Amino acid sequence: MKIQQILLNDRPKGMPSSDTFKTVSAELPAPVEGEVLVKPVYFSVDPYLRGRMQDEKSYIPPFKIQEPIESGGVAAVVESKDTRFREGDLVMPSNGKNFFPWATACIFSGDHLRKIDSSIPPTYYLGVMGMPGLTAYFGLMDIGKPKAGETVVISGAAGAVGLVTGQIAKIQGCRVVGIAGGAEKVQMLTDEFNFDAAIDYKNNPDMTAAIGAACPNGVDIYYDNVGGEISDAVMYHLNPFARIPVCGQIALYNSTEIPMGPRVQPTLIKFSVLMQGFTIGNYAARYQEGIKQLGEWVKTGKIKFTETIVEGFDQLPTALLGLFSGKNSGKMIVKV
Amino acid sequence: MKIQQILLNDRPKGMPSSDTFKTVSAELPAPVEGEVLVKPVYFSVDPYLRGRMQDEKSYIPPFKIQEPIESGGVAAVVESKDTRFREGDLVMPSNGKNFFPWATACIFSGDHLRKIDSSIPPTYYLGVMGMPGLTAYFGLMDIGKPKAGETVVISGAAGAVGLVTGQIAKIQGCRVVGIAGGAEKVQMLTDEFNFDAAIDYKNNPDMTAAIGAACPNGVDIYYDNVGGEISDAVMYHLNPFARIPVCGQIALYNSTEIPMGPRVQPTLIKFSVLMQGFTIGNYAARYQEGIKQLGEWVKTGKIKFTETIVEGFDQLPTALLGLFSGKNSGKMIVKV
Repeated sequence: MKIQQILLNDRPKGMPSSDTFKTVSAELPAPVEGEVLVKPVYFSVDPYLRGRMQDEKSYIPPFKIQEPIESGGVAAVVESKDTRFREGDLVMPSNGKNFFPWATACIFSGDHLRKIDSSIPPTYYLGVMGMPGLTAYFGLMDIGKPKAGETVVISGAAGAVGLVTGQIAKIQGCRVVGIAGGAEKVQMLTDEFNFDAAIDYKNNPDMTAAIGAACPNGVDIYYDNVGGEISDAVMYHLNPFARIPVCGQIALYNSTEIPMGPRVQPTLIKFSVLMQGFTIGNYAARYQEGIKQLGEWVKTGKIKFTETIVEGFDQLPTALLGLFSGKNSGKMIVKV
Repeated sequence: MKIQQILLNDRPKGMPSSDTFKTVSAELPAPVEGEVLVKPVYFSVDPYLRGRMQDEKSYIPPFKIQEPIESGGVAAVVESKDTRFREGDLVMPSNGKNFFPWATACIFSGDHLRKIDSSIPPTYYLGVMGMPGLTAYFGLMDIGKPKAGETVVISGAAGAVGLVTGQIAKIQGCRVVGIAGGAEKVQMLTDEFNFDAAIDYKNNPDMTAAIGAACPNGVDIYYDNVGGEISDAVMYHLNPFARIPVCGQIALYNSTEIPMGPRVQPTLIKFSVLMQGFTIGNYAARYQEGIKQLGEWVKTGKIKFTETIVEGFDQLPTALLGLFSGKNSGKMIVKV
């Protein structure tokens, strides 16, 4: 079977470009006993993929040059040599596998696939019920430890993780302030997602003042998805014993030099602040707890979700780059 | 009674100078019922005093200009109008009071004094059994959570807090690496205080390499007393799930501008690192636990201690400034 793949052509310096990716044709053999031929239907594109393009020590190994990029996704079974799967089943990677290669089809061992529940929109498994939702849930609940009445500030608030984080914080009885880029996004946060306030960083030259105005009682939790100058501005408003789940640093991922900024340690001491970096894999043993809780909130309407769906396998690189200029509201997904 | 006081003459910009302090004479009235006249015998000088010279929001209010500086100390009772105290008793501030004014004598309410146990050298109440020892104990045990076999790196290792931290880490079965300034100090750490390795930052132009060589299995806990470039170098060697108790930032306390450095958040994410700023006051409810444990270790010889004692009330400013150039080994104390 003839397929198309998108490879990492070269490691980018700074923002990835068309040279970073290469689309090639390949021949896929037929599946043998125990294997399943699947066609990805939806791919997730996420900021952390940028980190995997660099050859450096981190929590997931880097992509290899001239091999397919990979990311989360939902696929349809085309041909199964495993009795647990039938043509048309929607499946995701499982049992230690988290990613599909960026290919129009691929072969997986049936042991590394699981069927998804058809009562939930399949893309939700890439968003609110998937890694972004779990990242929001564990980062806020386990590190942030929100208490009713506290103020929670979320950067990247209109992204997949930020939207869910804000709604969970509201469920916990917190005042929730989102930071996002553009008038449309901040309006969406307050009008559709129940945030108490939202700040448009693209239209606020003085972010420190804007955060102060939106947080008259200071900041108890800062859920950091972006880093850089936005985070610097939040640091001025931390309350004693504030908690900072450090989830993402999208503002820095395309830096060509080591990013410099104001040192945070003096502030951490003055106000006894906790900063905890994390990745969702740390919580693998507790995924079922998170999925169950998120599922209840979704079914009862307490958490809503939105997606930006880009169509076409060949749009994968463009969709990924779009994350760095904030082209998405909610989860960025590519429909193959 | 005629006394001398040292006032904060002006808030320093950068390193304090002779203009920062002013010595004045004053007249002390006689103590009335319930009051005690005391003469400080030992004053503690500590890096955090620098922070109190600035007029900024922090965990303790700033010193007021033209009022006495204050710090921890041990005093002798000269005249008591409180039946709980007699002439010659050694006392410390208590019940919400932590400091004596920098004065050759002062009057305290008996409610704010406590007698100290004469079986322990009085200066130990300012060091290993006092705030520095408790800071070491709670910062390491409660935030660092050492496990046997882990590697613990301590900056400012030859200071009052660092010395105790290293010995507690050894008691927990850790490999302990100290960072200090000067050949004499690093030799003291390994020869007298049982550190597994010590690095002289004044004679190691490549601290990153030196730390890597001293920590072949990476760094699990970085107990940070100094901040700045030394801490930057440690960040390259953190293991997954490393913990960083952020105790002090003496390298930055005399900065005249906001100190800049490499942003730490990307490293915190990559290796799921915890940074927790703290001050010893957070543990006030648990002081007795800490004092009991430290006392046992001191009595059984598991923790040793050293002090740098400067003589003369008028030497208080010089002793304080000496901390910033590392003039002390162990606790810096002024004997009045």
